[in-house]
Amino acid sequence: MAYFDAASAAPLHPVARQALLASLDEGWADPARLYREGRRARLLLDAAREAAAEAVGCRADELVFTPSGTRAVHSGVAGALAGRRRAGDHLIVSAVEHSSVLHAAEAHESGGGTLTQVAVDRTGAVDPAAYAAALRGDTALACLQSANHEVGTEQPVADVAEACRAAGVPLLVDAAQSLGWGRVAGDWSLLTASAHKWGGPSGVGLLVVRKGVRFAPQGPGDERESGRAPGFENLPAIVAAAASLRAVRAEAAGEAARLRELTERIRARVPALVPDVEVVGDPVRRLPGTVTFSCLYVDGETLLHELDRAGFSVSSGSSCTSSTLMPSHVLRAMGVLSEGNVRVSLPPGTPAEDVERFLEVLPGTVAAVREKLGAPVAAVREKLGAPVAADSAREAGADLVVDALGRRCPVPVIELARVVGDVPVGGTVRVLSDDEAARLDIPAWCEMRGQEYAGEQPAERGTAYLVRRVS
Amino acid sequence: MAYFDAASAAPLHPVARQALLASLDEGWADPARLYREGRRARLLLDAAREAAAEAVGCRADELVFTPSGTRAVHSGVAGALAGRRRAGDHLIVSAVEHSSVLHAAEAHESGGGTLTQVAVDRTGAVDPAAYAAALRGDTALACLQSANHEVGTEQPVADVAEACRAAGVPLLVDAAQSLGWGRVAGDWSLLTASAHKWGGPSGVGLLVVRKGVRFAPQGPGDERESGRAPGFENLPAIVAAAASLRAVRAEAAGEAARLRELTERIRARVPALVPDVEVVGDPVRRLPGTVTFSCLYVDGETLLHELDRAGFSVSSGSSCTSSTLMPSHVLRAMGVLSEGNVRVSLPPGTPAEDVERFLEVLPGTVAAVREKLGAPVAAVREKLGAPVAADSAREAGADLVVDALGRRCPVPVIELARVVGDVPVGGTVRVLSDDEAARLDIPAWCEMRGQEYAGEQPAERGTAYLVRRVS
Repeated sequence: MAYFDAASAAPLHPVARQALLASLDEGWADPARLYREGRRARLLLDAAREAAAEAVGCRADELVFTPSGTRAVHSGVAGALAGRRRAGDHLIVSAVEHSSVLHAAEAHESGGGTLTQVAVDRTGAVDPAAYAAALRGDTALACLQSANHEVGTEQPVADVAEACRAAGVPLLVDAAQSLGWGRVAGDWSLLTASAHKWGGPSGVGLLVVRKGVRFAPQGPGDERESGRAPGFENLPAIVAAAASLRAVRAEAAGEAARLRELTERIRARVPALVPDVEVVGDPVRRLPGTVTFSCLYVDGETLLHELDRAGFSVSSGSSCTSSTLMPSHVLRAMGVLSEGNVRVSLPPGTPAEDVERFLEVLPGTVAAVREKLGAPVAAVREKLGAPVAADSAREAGADLVVDALGRRCPVPVIELARVVGDVPVGGTVRVLSDDEAARLDIPAWCEMRGQEYAGEQPAERGTAYLVRRVS
Repeated sequence: MAYFDAASAAPLHPVARQALLASLDEGWADPARLYREGRRARLLLDAAREAAAEAVGCRADELVFTPSGTRAVHSGVAGALAGRRRAGDHLIVSAVEHSSVLHAAEAHESGGGTLTQVAVDRTGAVDPAAYAAALRGDTALACLQSANHEVGTEQPVADVAEACRAAGVPLLVDAAQSLGWGRVAGDWSLLTASAHKWGGPSGVGLLVVRKGVRFAPQGPGDERESGRAPGFENLPAIVAAAASLRAVRAEAAGEAARLRELTERIRARVPALVPDVEVVGDPVRRLPGTVTFSCLYVDGETLLHELDRAGFSVSSGSSCTSSTLMPSHVLRAMGVLSEGNVRVSLPPGTPAEDVERFLEVLPGTVAAVREKLGAPVAAVREKLGAPVAADSAREAGADLVVDALGRRCPVPVIELARVVGDVPVGGTVRVLSDDEAARLDIPAWCEMRGQEYAGEQPAERGTAYLVRRVS
């Protein structure tokens, strides 16, 4: 078994386990109490705060522990926005933030606030100049992740922080994916993180608010954690989180270099071993352990299932693996292929042999899934009837119409690929689809295969995607 | 060492520890994922939910896990109020709720909502008829604890639930103190609880919303826990919480009877062993392990410190043990003495010998604290000069004036007790004090000592409390 989904949750680090066990006995009491069990708990809490602050690079009194990274983001965004209410109600986020940031932004918008989403390029990175251009006189807060959770691309946080600082706008950095690897560079104002991403226990997030940043905690509070995180402190988990952050940092430099080699090998070998693959994310400015690719003509859920059967746990941003049947917002914002999407995120300690075995298994697995898809695809062909009546196709302004209504990713793209050779060079194929993934995957297919994407039009049912054959 | 503060946090139950350890290995992955580690986590989460629901007496899909009891209360109150917005914006709570409920109520009020606090009697219980009288046409939500956390008094939840049901108003029950002992009786609509109160780990609360109750989660959410508790599930702790709830329930009947005998012994013996003590809370309708008393002429913080030195960990609602220098809102609402307040809350398994030793140690400890207070008291006497000039006292409408300005609890009451014999029967003593505890403790002293409390008046500095000697 190889667990390759550290970006979701890393297995518990041995130091976290050890610290958790020790503090179950020492740290269960209320740190606000005056008796010895309470004082002991308070000492543990203070020491954990010092250790975490040192790893973050902040003062201990700037850092509070929250029940999760998500809660840190929600509280951080709400508190910073409220603290800057006089400046205005404009919030900036990148288009590829973690859902917790986007949910906080939605809540802000539905409360009457204004929002700008800064676009990313095809690697998933924001352009610092474009980010700076989004800053306005009424901007209360800007948010930017340190690195993307789905494709591993690092964001230009230091540059964006400088622009924000110049504009007098606080920048909140979601450092969930990177804090285990090192401090966040640049002059940020708020920072959030999540312990179970670095091998700490679940149940612990960090919220850092630099001195001088206006901050007004929202919702009911209490006297715990500087009034910024109400509820009894989850002390054993906090102690384990801080201890494991120190431990993973001590190993970070060596482990980063090692994992970077492994993911570099995946980046290089997968396109050589598997036809019709797009590796996504920045090839250089990226997290050490994360690599993401998408496979044309592959159903993501089946691929994940087959990889699981072969002993590999990975995740996917494909639409068929989400409850909403939408491709991941990150892949959409990048404009890259979403079908057959696989995110490999290696936990520290991953043996090189596991990666080699993955590279051995992947080509056959992808081929088998593509093979399997032959059956439903053939049925569509039969139903469509080929050749399509030239008259009706021409009426629709195309040489050929593919009716993929009611069919899910990757069928529309498979059908498109199958018929494109049937129209003359310069001719067009019109793909009718009501699957949201088609909006992303048909243009991405064109980009990958050197065909021209000629835009979409609303159709009687679903959407018509026009593709012009150029080669 | 004897830890007598289970009402704050119970030591981890052995079953909780065992389940936590086991699920650290099995339950660290994301239960939303499709691979085997994720599926295994999902199974553990589902099983924990079933077990907790069975213990609560609800359907599994009515129960979500939150990061703490406090978060369960905050989310539950906000969601229920929002869900009933059309009915109105009136919220009812009892005056002796846990601070998490009162903080949620404050947030509601500061957002423009209306609030009624239902008073309690001297035992700390609400009167069901008085609670029912608070229900209005625009009441969106009513809240009532199952039992009080400071004095152990059980509330008439079933009767209040019936009145609420008749009025069509949902009742939220904060069951934090009682859920380990048994299900909450009555037809309540929402319920909250906290695992570390029953011997589970910290980091887990429960929020139950009965089917049919209108509920609109507030703030940013995500797809976890039915949209009612965002953030990565703290699965090992959830598993431990559910397992330990079953375990404590299995032992509850026998342990309740045993602890009830021990607290009954404290209730009976403390007034016999220590002069000038008031045992507070309902003598019959109360939690098995909780007993609270207050000692006249004693400084709560010093008493706690001395008991800690003697090996007993207890808590106190005295003003000197709070950061705000206010007596606990529970003692204030009950109108009972707050000085020298001690809450003993025995964890399950407390040996009878520990209680006996406590009863041995307490009288000497209280006597020593009273002795210690002799020094500052003497200084006040000297400063005041006795006898007080009769003229200035008469001008103030009293036979004697005690100037205790700038002195903290219990000095004003000590001074009052010291001079009351110097005025004739029918004469009055005027105590000047700027200590908030005096407002509670001077009337309570009168009640305990059979003197007449003649009310308070604003004074040039602080407040003047008038006491008429009647015996």
